[in-house]
Amino acid sequence: MKLLIVGSVAVDTIDTPFGSVKRALGGSATYASVASSYFTKTGIVGVVGNDFEKKHINLLKKQGVDLDGLQVDPSGKTFHWSGYYEGDMNEAITRDTELNVFEKFNPVIPDAYKKTPFVMLGNIHPALQLNVLEQIKKPRMVLCDTMNFWITSAPQIVEQVFRKVDIICINDGEAKLFCNTSSLPKAAAELLKLGAKRVIIKKGAHGVNLYGKKSFFSLPAIPLTKVKDPTGAGDSFAGGTIGYLANCKTDTEDNYRRGLLNGTVLASYCVENFSCRKTVSLKKTDINKRVKMLKEFNRIPAMK
Amino acid sequence: MKLLIVGSVAVDTIDTPFGSVKRALGGSATYASVASSYFTKTGIVGVVGNDFEKKHINLLKKQGVDLDGLQVDPSGKTFHWSGYYEGDMNEAITRDTELNVFEKFNPVIPDAYKKTPFVMLGNIHPALQLNVLEQIKKPRMVLCDTMNFWITSAPQIVEQVFRKVDIICINDGEAKLFCNTSSLPKAAAELLKLGAKRVIIKKGAHGVNLYGKKSFFSLPAIPLTKVKDPTGAGDSFAGGTIGYLANCKTDTEDNYRRGLLNGTVLASYCVENFSCRKTVSLKKTDINKRVKMLKEFNRIPAMK
Repeated sequence: MKLLIVGSVAVDTIDTPFGSVKRALGGSATYASVASSYFTKTGIVGVVGNDFEKKHINLLKKQGVDLDGLQVDPSGKTFHWSGYYEGDMNEAITRDTELNVFEKFNPVIPDAYKKTPFVMLGNIHPALQLNVLEQIKKPRMVLCDTMNFWITSAPQIVEQVFRKVDIICINDGEAKLFCNTSSLPKAAAELLKLGAKRVIIKKGAHGVNLYGKKSFFSLPAIPLTKVKDPTGAGDSFAGGTIGYLANCKTDTEDNYRRGLLNGTVLASYCVENFSCRKTVSLKKTDINKRVKMLKEFNRIPAMK
Repeated sequence: MKLLIVGSVAVDTIDTPFGSVKRALGGSATYASVASSYFTKTGIVGVVGNDFEKKHINLLKKQGVDLDGLQVDPSGKTFHWSGYYEGDMNEAITRDTELNVFEKFNPVIPDAYKKTPFVMLGNIHPALQLNVLEQIKKPRMVLCDTMNFWITSAPQIVEQVFRKVDIICINDGEAKLFCNTSSLPKAAAELLKLGAKRVIIKKGAHGVNLYGKKSFFSLPAIPLTKVKDPTGAGDSFAGGTIGYLANCKTDTEDNYRRGLLNGTVLASYCVENFSCRKTVSLKKTDINKRVKMLKEFNRIPAMK
């Protein structure tokens, strides 16, 4: 296996102005692995409860995602997030979070996964992210995500994680919060000093930025006028990006850029329907079509 | 003359964490004309009062800006804005606005200016923007800017202006406010329906987007860690963009994109010092250096 993704596997109840779903498949590891599955063989490490439906398992398996690392905890129910979006859906409003079996999640990496060269540490407690890294033998590349909650409640542990990874992939608000600045270039420079090779700043509708020590790359989000549900966009982006990279022989700036293109495309499909309904049904030609669109969005003509 | 810029000519008193200026040269027409002067012969139409210093006149003249349309109103003082920025300077906080002679500004276009092919309507009352358009004979291209204040207080007149121009160039907050949506793609689509050929959305540190009916282009701001004073960045951008376009034979998508590149570069230099201190001292090589940087920031490698 090429890529291991650790994160939440959840069921989500979501209302948006364009519809609702109840207990649909969700979670960071789910969205990320569905996205990465288009590029590389992916396995997930996570936990679900005694109520997790067989159809979700089947869907992930059909997508080619390896589930040997998915623990089933019979003592409780699956992590359940309930929330909604209003207006143009720029912000998720949480109605209820039932951690359930996720509260006591202890990621155990199966032996067969321990030499996986690429690792994505999805948004879970940073102490668990460290715990996962200790179980993996010399990965070639590690990408981590996190969230405001951990930056506020456990900043030192988040920093320990940041110091051990190759790619820090967080959103603009989180970068500014962690670095205590409202300048993204300053935040990115500070994050790079912790040792990562690249910092990826996710800016939602404003797209993404890739910062290296001596490089900078910018990519817009695909401008969509029909967004049904933004849940999972960031995870689909990260999964698509690291999934693409896992299939590359070298870690060059060009390959990072290609990874971001594919991640951006997966995110754009993700938001067009609830859960991973859209991202599980893509063809390679769908992905390539939007990669081509992005190239045109960024195209700079020769100067006269 | 190729380009006429109508807007405010002001003196600004500004404090930022990196210094202060008192009664420095400012105003939308000032910033925009200094930027455009690198690309095309530019004249401004505006008003100053009896206190306007000769050194400001000399500076604009030295820059090659034609001042035949700059009225000197002996009855009062020059428009004076006083404000400050805190922290990372994402927002200007106004201490005081003395409109002075600007309050009764009635733009009179000199005969020699009436056949100017390119017009930038800087941020002034939309009724005055309409008044200016009536005085110009069949311009080839008109770009307009506006601000929240007019969108809130005179939305119908702003709409009349938008219906008469080729390029609507406004910031993201203004676009969302005018179209009553928080989705930029939706706002841009709505603005294009009013008849403009292009809508340019200025997003500050997130860069700019260029929307056409069938095209989209995205450009980041140059990531600067040393910003001294953000005042005038948007006007420098607009002036640089329309200035570049005024020197082009055709209004192609590629020329719009080239215009945005040059506008972005002028904005990046503007914020590196107070007033137009930095933008009046540029060489063509300084501009080309940053145009080249931007090309690399947007560069997408061939997909494998």
